Amino acid sequence: MPPAQDTLGAICKTVLERITPKPEEREKIEGLAKALEKKVAKAAEHFGVKATVRLEGSVAKDTWLSGEPDIDIFMRLPPNMPRSALGEVALKIARKATEGAKQVERFAEHPYLEAFLDEVRVNIVPCYKTQSGEWLSATDRTPYHTDYVKRHLKPEMRGEVRLLKKFMKGIGVYGAEIKVGGFSGYLCELLVIHYGSFLNVLEAFAQPKQRMVVDIEKHYKGREDELPLLFNEPLVMIDPVDMGRNVASAVQPQKFYTFVAAARAFLEKPSLKFFYPPETAPLTVEKLKETLKKRGSAMLFIVFGEVDAVPDILWGQLYKSQRSLAKLLETTDFALLRHAVWSDEEKLNVLIFELESRQLSPLKRHLGPPLDKLEDSRKFLAKHVASPETVSGPYIEGGRWTVEIKRKYTDAVSLLGEKLKDGGRNAGVAKKIAQALSRGFKILVNEEIAETYAENIEFAKFLTDFLQGKPKWL
Amino acid sequence: MPPAQDTLGAICKTVLERITPKPEEREKIEGLAKALEKKVAKAAEHFGVKATVRLEGSVAKDTWLSGEPDIDIFMRLPPNMPRSALGEVALKIARKATEGAKQVERFAEHPYLEAFLDEVRVNIVPCYKTQSGEWLSATDRTPYHTDYVKRHLKPEMRGEVRLLKKFMKGIGVYGAEIKVGGFSGYLCELLVIHYGSFLNVLEAFAQPKQRMVVDIEKHYKGREDELPLLFNEPLVMIDPVDMGRNVASAVQPQKFYTFVAAARAFLEKPSLKFFYPPETAPLTVEKLKETLKKRGSAMLFIVFGEVDAVPDILWGQLYKSQRSLAKLLETTDFALLRHAVWSDEEKLNVLIFELESRQLSPLKRHLGPPLDKLEDSRKFLAKHVASPETVSGPYIEGGRWTVEIKRKYTDAVSLLGEKLKDGGRNAGVAKKIAQALSRGFKILVNEEIAETYAENIEFAKFLTDFLQGKPKWL
Repeated sequence: MPPAQDTLGAICKTVLERITPKPEEREKIEGLAKALEKKVAKAAEHFGVKATVRLEGSVAKDTWLSGEPDIDIFMRLPPNMPRSALGEVALKIARKATEGAKQVERFAEHPYLEAFLDEVRVNIVPCYKTQSGEWLSATDRTPYHTDYVKRHLKPEMRGEVRLLKKFMKGIGVYGAEIKVGGFSGYLCELLVIHYGSFLNVLEAFAQPKQRMVVDIEKHYKGREDELPLLFNEPLVMIDPVDMGRNVASAVQPQKFYTFVAAARAFLEKPSLKFFYPPETAPLTVEKLKETLKKRGSAMLFIVFGEVDAVPDILWGQLYKSQRSLAKLLETTDFALLRHAVWSDEEKLNVLIFELESRQLSPLKRHLGPPLDKLEDSRKFLAKHVASPETVSGPYIEGGRWTVEIKRKYTDAVSLLGEKLKDGGRNAGVAKKIAQALSRGFKILVNEEIAETYAENIEFAKFLTDFLQGKPKWL
Repeated sequence: MPPAQDTLGAICKTVLERITPKPEEREKIEGLAKALEKKVAKAAEHFGVKATVRLEGSVAKDTWLSGEPDIDIFMRLPPNMPRSALGEVALKIARKATEGAKQVERFAEHPYLEAFLDEVRVNIVPCYKTQSGEWLSATDRTPYHTDYVKRHLKPEMRGEVRLLKKFMKGIGVYGAEIKVGGFSGYLCELLVIHYGSFLNVLEAFAQPKQRMVVDIEKHYKGREDELPLLFNEPLVMIDPVDMGRNVASAVQPQKFYTFVAAARAFLEKPSLKFFYPPETAPLTVEKLKETLKKRGSAMLFIVFGEVDAVPDILWGQLYKSQRSLAKLLETTDFALLRHAVWSDEEKLNVLIFELESRQLSPLKRHLGPPLDKLEDSRKFLAKHVASPETVSGPYIEGGRWTVEIKRKYTDAVSLLGEKLKDGGRNAGVAKKIAQALSRGFKILVNEEIAETYAENIEFAKFLTDFLQGKPKWL
């Protein structure tokens, strides 16, 4: 593929200018970070807690994007502090350090505090101060990650990381949180360190291959063959500070494939829209109704209210429930075209299943054993010959006993309605979602979604994109 | 399986009494046969044709069933007679020999005459008088078959052959003609010679196995391993008079399986109904309509008139057309439950296709290439990104490009109507059937068949059995 070098270069230059913090912004953010670092240290002292407080994350590594700073302050606490106390102690310190600011309690592996200072989001996160390799919690590695990147990412490469991050944000694969299941900032930094530049990373992913395995620090030197067996994700990046960990383990195959496809498309036909996808203009309600009617499929929406869970838990449970219900529909013979989930993470959740048809024929074929399975054949005949469920047969087809029987469920809405009426735990719905469903839900079909659509602009955009189906860069 | 020996024996005895010709019937048939043999020889002489005339078939071998005699007179003609003349010469002789009787010209490999004398059907068939192994036409082997059976079938075993034939007739697997695709009389005789008795044959077939290969004269002694490779039918019986021929080659797998299943069922629970299946009482038209409605499937009937072909050709072409249209429906995504064909061999033919539903969703998923097929992916995207057929996508699913497109055909009746409007040769309909379709056809759905049903008692019985679906002995 002959990359349009001029265009490529021009586009990267334009983007880089927009996303590199200007001195003024940089001063403000770095000033804020320094001040906060001190306040947290002081608050810890105030409570008599022995804590090492340090700025981490993209601001520390100078890989943040202009306009989107995230200040991460870590407080490293003594390893002998009980796990149960860690969060409480940290929250107490963090609250005092950000007194007067808007504060939101968050939860990843343990609780941490999110606060807003001068409209800048800051995260104050606890971890254990451990030696490398003696990790007590997942966040304990973060300071080592920061150190590694600071040591290996040359200053002139920071722009390359910014380009890669912005590209990934643009195509929707950036972020290791459950909702996205994409590439973390740290992974972007390692990719640039390993491949040398933004374009080199794209070139590497654009190659046709089933898997990518990168052992950046050659931890497995001499036994590289073992790597594909030790890790089974399509994308593997051995953590330079922990050879047992795949930095890309949170990257969902779908996000990996999307990045591969987008990298190819961009190299072939560079465009700003990869970095800055056009805003979706939602269809009008009238147009939505017309579009759904013309499609002729059956779009089922399971609409329900608040789920008692923080975003990472919420999305994990939504995805799990979505997979279970998709499987239920498929094993009940419904032809499932696509499925998706949407949530405002507060009071509205929507599971979407698009079927070829809402109704199935009442009649289906049920294949029995081959004739040469003597005992199975006997049982099959005993069961079906005089059964009231049998509509035709048993007869022999292709050497197998076969029978035509009535389907138990012919209407997808009835099926879902019945399976979800007690929350749907037996149908594989995750616990928190089942609890929310127990408090009530609606199953809407096609244009019945119009009201919900009209009331939620973000959902309207999502559904408009879903109906379109193709990536914006395509 | 513990066979109910008493019942078994009693049932076989009852059947045998009914099917063994009484002396009076035997005298009549054997007298008729002898007289006809002489007349044919005389007629040949009259026309100056050198013919060896002899009684063949079940009457010659004394394995015919009481009430169902078939007198086969063969005239063996000189090998130097041209093939084109063989039929004409034979018909001329046969017509003269049966002057005054009802005569029907038939056709198998070459023309022969069917006539009715004293309400007994006689077939006068020509063949070449060749040495064994120097066959010029398929029927040349018949006299050798007769000789082989006369030599190897002990008189006390003739009843066993009669039982086997009657059993096979009862379950619908007797007859090598295309319509049935079952077991010939000669095959029944060889099976009894090989296994020793009717019940032994049943026991042998009742065993669970994928295939049966019998080399009765051990033509392949020492190289039995080759047999399964030389023949690929599920049932192989090496012809004792021609080691290159499988006597069971006309036995369709479905008939083989049916015999296997019936043999098992009979040995487990013997009953007269295997030999004498109850006559079908066709549903009333009202009941038929109700039954079709309750099924909820879509039963499509392609109804058309006379086909210009003798029965063996007619059935061969009907079956071929049935298979082609079944494949057409399946590749167009219709869920086909079962299909069948009915014909009165004169003026009415019906192809039946039962579908889960007559209609399909207008929308379907179309899977494209995996992402790692670079060139295929590029072509797929080029084709579908801006195509008016594309409803959603292309999007990536499971590492493959996928697109949702409109189906070309959503109504099975429209599909068949369009494909058959010029006879359907392009859809795989056989030539003679296509000619008949070109003269007109109707596609009827569900209760629209009522009129045809009401007018044809045999078709009504057939459809009643088809809806029931299970063998009568089950």
